[in-house]
Amino acid sequence: MKVIPTVSQFSNAVRSAARPLGLVPTMGFLHAGHMSLVDRARADNATLAASIFVNPAQFGPKEDFATYPRDMESDLAKLEDAGVDLVFTPSLEEMYPEEFDTYVEVSHLTERLEGEARPGHFRGVATVVCKLLAIAWPDRAYFGQKDAQQCLVVKKLNADLNLRAEIVVVPTVREADGLALSSRNSYLDSEERKAATVLYRALSLAQDLGTSNATEIRERIRALIEAEPLAEIDYVSVADAETLDELDEVSGPALVSLAVRIGGTRLIDNVTLEFA
Amino acid sequence: MKVIPTVSQFSNAVRSAARPLGLVPTMGFLHAGHMSLVDRARADNATLAASIFVNPAQFGPKEDFATYPRDMESDLAKLEDAGVDLVFTPSLEEMYPEEFDTYVEVSHLTERLEGEARPGHFRGVATVVCKLLAIAWPDRAYFGQKDAQQCLVVKKLNADLNLRAEIVVVPTVREADGLALSSRNSYLDSEERKAATVLYRALSLAQDLGTSNATEIRERIRALIEAEPLAEIDYVSVADAETLDELDEVSGPALVSLAVRIGGTRLIDNVTLEFA
Repeated sequence: MKVIPTVSQFSNAVRSAARPLGLVPTMGFLHAGHMSLVDRARADNATLAASIFVNPAQFGPKEDFATYPRDMESDLAKLEDAGVDLVFTPSLEEMYPEEFDTYVEVSHLTERLEGEARPGHFRGVATVVCKLLAIAWPDRAYFGQKDAQQCLVVKKLNADLNLRAEIVVVPTVREADGLALSSRNSYLDSEERKAATVLYRALSLAQDLGTSNATEIRERIRALIEAEPLAEIDYVSVADAETLDELDEVSGPALVSLAVRIGGTRLIDNVTLEFA
Repeated sequence: MKVIPTVSQFSNAVRSAARPLGLVPTMGFLHAGHMSLVDRARADNATLAASIFVNPAQFGPKEDFATYPRDMESDLAKLEDAGVDLVFTPSLEEMYPEEFDTYVEVSHLTERLEGEARPGHFRGVATVVCKLLAIAWPDRAYFGQKDAQQCLVVKKLNADLNLRAEIVVVPTVREADGLALSSRNSYLDSEERKAATVLYRALSLAQDLGTSNATEIRERIRALIEAEPLAEIDYVSVADAETLDELDEVSGPALVSLAVRIGGTRLIDNVTLEFA
C-alpha cells in the first residue's frame, strides 16, 4: 500500500494505475461503516484508492473541526489489511493553499436538512469532493447511505460538472442495537450511548407504522424522541428521496431522516420508506 | 475532423486520443484571434480539440445571449482547415439539462472589473470551463489575453479544483488600426468601427506615458476616451496583473484594462505594463 501526501504524486499514481479504479473518500477515524465501503470498492475495482482528510471547509465556525477524532496510524493499518492500494493523506495546505478561492455550490438540494442546520456545510463537501474526484479521477466513488443528503449532493455535482465517476451508495452499518456507526459516536458517554438508540428506534417506528401520512409519521417520531430526556430534536423529515422536498403523503420512495442532539453530540440517521 | 455533439461521445473520444491533447474552448463566430489559439494549440499537441458553445450562464439577463453572433458552418470549415481533430458542439440541453443545479464560484478575482460590471458572468465562465475541462480532460487549454480577467479566473479554478490542465494564454490579435478582434465587433456600424479604435489608442497612451503613477494613467486614459463622442466609459483600471487590486503606483507587472461602450456595443481590451 502506497501512502501519498501530495496532489501531484497521487494524481500521477492513479493515472498509471490499473482500471477500473475505486475511490473511498473519508475523514479518517475509520469504523466498520467506512470498511464496508472499502470492502465493496475492493470487490468492484482493479485498483482501490482511499483518502483521509478532515475537510475544514465542511465544518461551521462553531463546529468540531479541531476536536474531530483522528487516528492516522490505526486508519492506515485498517486500510492496508483491507487491501487498499493507494491512500491519499494530504495536509491542509496541500488541499487549501493560502490563496485558495474557488468553491462548488449545489443549489436546492442543499437548502434543507443538513444544509439548513449547517450553513456552508455542503459547499465544503461539494468543493472537496470535486477536488478529490479531479485528483483521483476514479471510475467509481463510494459514499455511505448514513449521509443520505450528502450522497444526493455528490451525485448532483458529479453529474452537473461532468466528472464521470459512478457514485456508489453503500448501506448504513449499525451496532447490534441499531445505532448507526459514526466517528462522532466516540463523543458519547455510556449514558448518552444508551440514549442514542432513540434515533434508530424512531426510524424503525416510521417503518412499522404502516401509514403513508407523512405528518403522522413526523409526529410519532417526535413524540418518541421527546420521551428520551437526553435527546433534543434538530429536525425530523419525511421527504421525497430524490428531491428532499418535504411530503404530506408518502407515495414514491421517501427518505425519513433525523438530526438529534444527545448531550453535546449531534447525530444523524435515516431510512428509506416506500409503499408498493 | 470529428464533430461530436454529446458529452459522453466527446469524453470517450478524448480518452482514446493521442496525448498531449490541447483544447480551445470557444463561443464560435471564429475570427483570427480564435485561430491564433488554434494554431498555437496545433503546434503544441498531438491531438487538437475545440469546442463551440455559446454559454448562456455567462450572459446577464439583459445581455446579448439571444443575439450573440453564430455561424456554425463557417466555424467548422475554419477549424477543419486549421487541422483540428475533434470539435465538441453540445446543445444547451446537453450542457445544462433541466435539473442542472451546480455552479463554480471563484471569489476575490471575480469581484472587480468585468465581475463587477457583469454580475454572475464569471460564475457562468467558471462553471462552463470546469465542465469543459472535465469533459475534454486536456493537457493544455488555450485562452486569449483579450479576456485577461477570464484568464486569471480560469487559472485559479483550474489550480484550486486540481483540474491539472496547463492554461496557456495567447496574445491578443488586433486589426491594423489596433482594434482587438472580437465577435462583438460585428455589431459596429462603420462610424462606430472608427470610434472603436479609441480603446487601443488609450492603451497605447498608457504604455507611452512613461509614468508609473497609476492615478495619472487612469486620468489620461479617461480624458482621451471622453474626447470620443460615441464612446462611453464603463471602467478604466490600472491593477496588479495577478490580483487585479487597483494600484496607486505601478511597480510590478500591471494590467491596464478598459470597458467602453461604442454606441450599443460594449468592448473590452487591455495591455500589460511594467517598469523595469
